[in-house]
Formats: sequence, structure tokens, C-alpha cells
Amino acid sequence: MTTDKLLLVRNSEAGPESRAARKERTRKALIDGTLELLADRSFASISLREVARTADIVPTAFYRHFASLEELGVVLVEESMRVLRQMLREVRRTTTPQSAKESLDVLVRHVSAHEAQFRFFSRERYGGVPEIRRAIAAEMRVFSTELTIDLSRVPMLAQWNSDDLEMTADLIVSTMLSAVIGLLEADAPGARSRDEVITQAERQLRLILLGIGQWRQHPS
Amino acid sequence: MTTDKLLLVRNSEAGPESRAARKERTRKALIDGTLELLADRSFASISLREVARTADIVPTAFYRHFASLEELGVVLVEESMRVLRQMLREVRRTTTPQSAKESLDVLVRHVSAHEAQFRFFSRERYGGVPEIRRAIAAEMRVFSTELTIDLSRVPMLAQWNSDDLEMTADLIVSTMLSAVIGLLEADAPGARSRDEVITQAERQLRLILLGIGQWRQHPS
Repeated sequence: MTTDKLLLVRNSEAGPESRAARKERTRKALIDGTLELLADRSFASISLREVARTADIVPTAFYRHFASLEELGVVLVEESMRVLRQMLREVRRTTTPQSAKESLDVLVRHVSAHEAQFRFFSRERYGGVPEIRRAIAAEMRVFSTELTIDLSRVPMLAQWNSDDLEMTADLIVSTMLSAVIGLLEADAPGARSRDEVITQAERQLRLILLGIGQWRQHPS
Repeated sequence: MTTDKLLLVRNSEAGPESRAARKERTRKALIDGTLELLADRSFASISLREVARTADIVPTAFYRHFASLEELGVVLVEESMRVLRQMLREVRRTTTPQSAKESLDVLVRHVSAHEAQFRFFSRERYGGVPEIRRAIAAEMRVFSTELTIDLSRVPMLAQWNSDDLEMTADLIVSTMLSAVIGLLEADAPGARSRDEVITQAERQLRLILLGIGQWRQHPS
């Protein structure tokens, strides 16, 4: 009997949790534990040993779940962003594309509920570990691409070329991003309040929509 | 005769450089050397010993110029940003406020000529050493405030309240900032080209100007 089989038998004797479920639970504990470590430290400063400890496993057992600490970081970025992207897609599907306010509301609530995650993103987006930086940049591009596709389906924009749609999507994404940064820094000394950040972002999105209404196919 | 006086005498024998000029030269060498160290490393990772070495002085002599490494970092941020702010003020003074393109041109040229500086800013803006992060954030707010004041003098915007002016200035600054990040990452795998980044930023600023033209005093 191999060690693995022995563990399986022991586990099935101990309770109803399957080996796969236990593996998934440890994987999740590793991701959550890492996120907690990242609350106020850079990714480059945390060690595999510390991460393993958060999930109550020995360091070598870490490799049953991830090939490296960087891989865990990339998975953390991808899984978190996927959830937010899915939520924003849903908003755009069920509301008019003009109601950027609904998307902003969802974003604001999501950032508030997952502050540590977004602090990690903003800290690692421009510095730190290259793999993580690239993963965040790639996810931001997917955001823009999805918004570009949705904009292309708006009747008012039917005549726009793809460059214009992309330019507009990027402007909306960068304005939202700037609101996220504002939220993370809100209420610090010298910074704006949460409400000020949200109100300003709403107005900026409205100003952009007014600009969209005026944009012609070949405006230059 | 104190050591200082001795040095002064020696120096005046050796050449025409005064003690003040020499001090200024070392100060500048420390700033430039630090910037070079920061080309691909975080501020937190550089040591006072390394910085001193770039200016050919012993570590203890560093304190004749700066109280700490963090103070040097803050000075680096302030001096660099002051130069750029001065340039952009000049552009706005000599062109119509509608010609955001001229400001963008100046910014693009300045970023190209000082890439290491801007890599340092973007890396430290959201992570790293708190003093530096705060200094960069404060400088960005000054940018926004100066643009707000300039916008308030534009006849077309004479009726706008300060919230609207500030909201618009922030949108322009965040769009410019996003262009700077795009430039720093341009031509990397999967990223846009320099020209694409510049063209897109120009169009985004034009779209914002179109939105400004439509904005009413109480648009909500």
C-alpha cells in the first residue's frame, strides 16, 4: 500500500471528506493565507515557509499544490480578477451600456469587500515580481477587451471602428482603476473621502459618455 | 585650523571650485547615482553604503547632504516633478487650453528623456517606502491643483464650479498618467507600441474635451 492510498483510507475512516476535497481545501487555505500575508507586505518579501504555515502544511507539501510561489501568485491574480470580470459582464448584460454607474457601484462594493486583494494588485502592478506584474497587466487587458466587445454591440456605436472602441474602453478602464486607487487611499491624511472618490468617478464617467456622444467616426 | 578650513584651503589651492560648489556637486552625484541604482531595483532594496559609493564618498559623509536615504528619495521625487510641472505650466501658458496635444507632446518627450525617473515613480507610487509613496502622491495632487486653476481661467469654463473643474483636471491627469505607464511598458511582449500609446492618449484627451464641451453646470 503506498502512502497516498494509506492516507486515503485513513481519511475515509476519519470522516466524509474525500482526498480531492481535502486537497482543494488546502489549496484554498494556501491562497487565502497568502492574501493575508500580502495585506501589508510585498509579494517578494514573503517566503514559501510562511505561506505553508498559514495552511498548516510542511513546506515541501506546498509543491503538491503549486509549482512555485510565483505560480500561486499568478493563480491568485487570475482567480480574483475572473470573479470581478464575471460580475461586471453581468452588470453590462442586464443594464444599458450608458449606465456606467451600475458598473462603478459593483466595482466599489467589490473593492470594499476585498481590500487586501486590491492593495496587493496596486502594489504589484508596477513593481515587484515580474510574473505577478505581467499577470495583472494581462488581466487588465482582458478587462479592456471585454468592454471593447460590449461597446461594439451598442447601437449608437455601430459605426465606430475598432481603434475608437478600444480607445474608449481603455479610457473607461483607466478611470475606474483610478477610482479603485482613490478608494484604497481614501480617508488617509491629505486624501479624499470615500464618497468624494465615488462621486468624482461617477462624474468622470458621465463626462466620458458625453464625449462619446460627440465623437465622430473620423474625428481627426 | 579646523578640518573644514583645511579642506577649503586645500581645495582653493587645487582649483577654482568653492566648498559650496563641491558640496552641490556631491549632492547632485548622490541624487544621480541613486537614480541609476533605482533603474531596475526598488528603493527599499538600496543601501546608504551603495548610494555613497556612487558619489565616491564614505557612508558617514552622506549625512552632510541628507538626513536619511528617505529624505534623498523625497528630494528626488520633488525636484524631478518640479521640472516637469514647470514645463507643463509653460505649455499651458503659451497655448490654448484646448490644445492638450502640446502638453502630451512635452510629457512624452520628458518621459523618454528620463525613463529611469518615471520607472522609479511608477514602481514606488503604490508600494515600497511610505515617505516616497506619500511624496509622489502629494506631487500628483499638485499637478491636479495647478491644472484645476488653469482650467478655471478658460472662458468656456467660467461658469463651472470648483468640483467640476477638479473632476475634469483629475480625469486629464489620470489619462496622462495612464499614457506614461503605457510608454514605460511599450514594445514589451504583448504590450502596445509607443506610437499606439501616444495616438490613443491624444484621442482620449480629445474625447474628454468633447465631453467638457457638453457638460452643464448642474448636469446630474
